[in-house]
Amino acid sequence: MSRTYLIDGMTCQHCVGSVRREVSALDGVSAAEVDLETRTLTVEGTATDEAIAGAVAEAGYAVAGRR
Amino acid sequence: MSRTYLIDGMTCQHCVGSVRREVSALDGVSAAEVDLETRTLTVEGTATDEAIAGAVAEAGYAVAGRR
Repeated sequence: MSRTYLIDGMTCQHCVGSVRREVSALDGVSAAEVDLETRTLTVEGTATDEAIAGAVAEAGYAVAGRR
Repeated sequence: MSRTYLIDGMTCQHCVGSVRREVSALDGVSAAEVDLETRTLTVEGTATDEAIAGAVAEAGYAVAGRR
């Protein structure tokens, strides 16, 4: 099952790559896709919302909500 | 002596880093500084304008003019 988050602050494909790398590196994440146009992050796996928000923050961005 | 170029398309510090890395790697460039707010690249060295524009393009951006 996947969850989708809205991410604030991404402006370019480098930003997309940073978020994807940080979230993909989490335990309990089997897939992470980021779309710049819709500003969304879609995650497959068992990682908690808190862990995902932490990884997004580590990349320098913020989770603005769920989609 | 330094030259300053106006760069189109940079949106974040990742973009800045990409431009700086590509231009710094050129033969004949002793220093390259990029400022996101003013969208400028300042280069010290003997590299040609063409070589610098090529490195900026390699990073995914475009020289829009001289400052």
